[in-house]
Amino acid sequence: MTVNRQWLLAKRPEGMIGPDNFTYNETAIPTPSDGEVLVRNLYFSFDPTQRNWMVDRPSYLPPVGLGEVMRAGSVGQVVESHHPDFAPGDLVQTTGNWQDYVIVAPGAGPMGVNKLPPGVPPELMLSALGITGITAYFGLLEIGQPVAGETVLVSGAAGATGSVAAQIARIKGCRVVAIAGGPEKCAWLKDEAKVDVAIDYKEGNLDAQIGAACPDKWNVFFDNVGGSTLQAALNHLALHSRIALCGGISGYNDIEPQPGPNNIMNLVTNRGRMEGFIILDYLPRMMEAIQDLMGWVSSGELKYRVDVQEGFDNIPATLQRLYTGENQGKQLLKLADPE
Amino acid sequence: MTVNRQWLLAKRPEGMIGPDNFTYNETAIPTPSDGEVLVRNLYFSFDPTQRNWMVDRPSYLPPVGLGEVMRAGSVGQVVESHHPDFAPGDLVQTTGNWQDYVIVAPGAGPMGVNKLPPGVPPELMLSALGITGITAYFGLLEIGQPVAGETVLVSGAAGATGSVAAQIARIKGCRVVAIAGGPEKCAWLKDEAKVDVAIDYKEGNLDAQIGAACPDKWNVFFDNVGGSTLQAALNHLALHSRIALCGGISGYNDIEPQPGPNNIMNLVTNRGRMEGFIILDYLPRMMEAIQDLMGWVSSGELKYRVDVQEGFDNIPATLQRLYTGENQGKQLLKLADPE
Repeated sequence: MTVNRQWLLAKRPEGMIGPDNFTYNETAIPTPSDGEVLVRNLYFSFDPTQRNWMVDRPSYLPPVGLGEVMRAGSVGQVVESHHPDFAPGDLVQTTGNWQDYVIVAPGAGPMGVNKLPPGVPPELMLSALGITGITAYFGLLEIGQPVAGETVLVSGAAGATGSVAAQIARIKGCRVVAIAGGPEKCAWLKDEAKVDVAIDYKEGNLDAQIGAACPDKWNVFFDNVGGSTLQAALNHLALHSRIALCGGISGYNDIEPQPGPNNIMNLVTNRGRMEGFIILDYLPRMMEAIQDLMGWVSSGELKYRVDVQEGFDNIPATLQRLYTGENQGKQLLKLADPE
Repeated sequence: MTVNRQWLLAKRPEGMIGPDNFTYNETAIPTPSDGEVLVRNLYFSFDPTQRNWMVDRPSYLPPVGLGEVMRAGSVGQVVESHHPDFAPGDLVQTTGNWQDYVIVAPGAGPMGVNKLPPGVPPELMLSALGITGITAYFGLLEIGQPVAGETVLVSGAAGATGSVAAQIARIKGCRVVAIAGGPEKCAWLKDEAKVDVAIDYKEGNLDAQIGAACPDKWNVFFDNVGGSTLQAALNHLALHSRIALCGGISGYNDIEPQPGPNNIMNLVTNRGRMEGFIILDYLPRMMEAIQDLMGWVSSGELKYRVDVQEGFDNIPATLQRLYTGENQGKQLLKLADPE
């Protein structure tokens, strides 16, 4: 290849995002300077929070500017290195953005650039061992603080983060109730992730389903969905319960923000705690998570599932799959295999 | 007096409560058994949470039954004692309910019965040193965890709990922004409670008023109001901020629960924590609070304000004052002075 293909942010989203939010572009392959590394992107990670980066409002990261390459996590391979720690051929995980080539400066930027541990394939690095897996790890354990024997409720439980959170809860000795959309996702949760109960919210009456699945209420709720899911869950919290507020994908594509749960007072009567977190705060401790997660993957206790699309042209449409719920597990897109 | 006047719960509330929720009754004065004490109620405490006790749904205390005497905190005087720790004439704080006489068994019940510290008048015992003051103390310090120099936002700040929370925040070296309804309450907050900014929510655009009063956002929010006040506040939270969720008086008289805040995701981007609490959990530690509160009242650092109605007939109408915001400070009703 002699050009660097890119998808630029062309239009800020109103309502559901779509391919018209992005525009195709080609530039020359950039040249790294001293201390920099040229990486060729091989796999892209798709994450619900990318929708938030497209909106022009202050958040935990600056918004992507109009005309800028869309921000995305990736696994790539070093093509040219002017940094002593990296050599051509190294597989790295970084924020490569939607383009073929990216220049990274090791040590700079919030996400950094990290070599893949030996033997870890890109698909694992971008799912169970990636940002989503680490998010599940710290969110569940540090914010949710589950205790063996407690009931842990997880929404978006077939997704990249939820599926890891649900399984860590099981590994830690908790009873796990997992909410997902559709029989296929629920079957995976029961058969592979080995949760105690899988609730299909598409069957309706989520409130009653949670009540039936949690006769003694829940102690920890790991929430990826927000909105009516959060409201239904808040009807069934046990005393001194904890909510790890990871995301609210149900609302990300709303033009007008949807109303919040009408039963927040249940936090008072039950002395509940609802706490948001951002994984950036835990990145200095990410090796703790990766060691545990690798161990559980190796032993077979932790299953991961990836949904791998292909082709540079399909990048924008692949992002949309997250918000329609089409993805089955962690959404990835592969450009090429490592050389 | 030879009869025991009572107000019974006659009808569960739908919408705004009113005198027709209660019915007048007379019984004989009860006779205490061994270990029991007969108390004559002198002062009643009126608390927003009483509305919650009238509703037939599980909560942190069982609901008051239809036909039962309405539950209420009180200060009374011992008339007859069959318990070694109490003697006739002792002033006590207890849950005396809406009646002239109550039998209490020291050591039983969630609220217990406690002698007033020497020199503490009933009005102080039922306000700054009472359940509302202790609620403010533990809610602000244990849940809010303010640090000197931080900005503390308080809603319902002219009320019994809010006014104490606001002043403790000031005493602990915080910048205090207090929200209340009407110029009279705001003037008291500025002139007597010495808050930094008093916001009159009745002037409208609470969101902009909070933004102007908190140019660096707020670090702790002590919320008594919920609803649109909570939503407006959630637009201005600083990183790692804490919300002590004390109550939600704005919604207590709604027939249909009002929607919750549409911006809960701000808790995620700002790593915020929202936590409910019930003062019953802290009663074993109440002497910590009372000692500090008494010290601050004695030194003049902590002002309290009571709104004292009179007359047994006026009890039901006095409760309603809390929800219309007519009360100026802690709402009390006096039946008689101590003998």
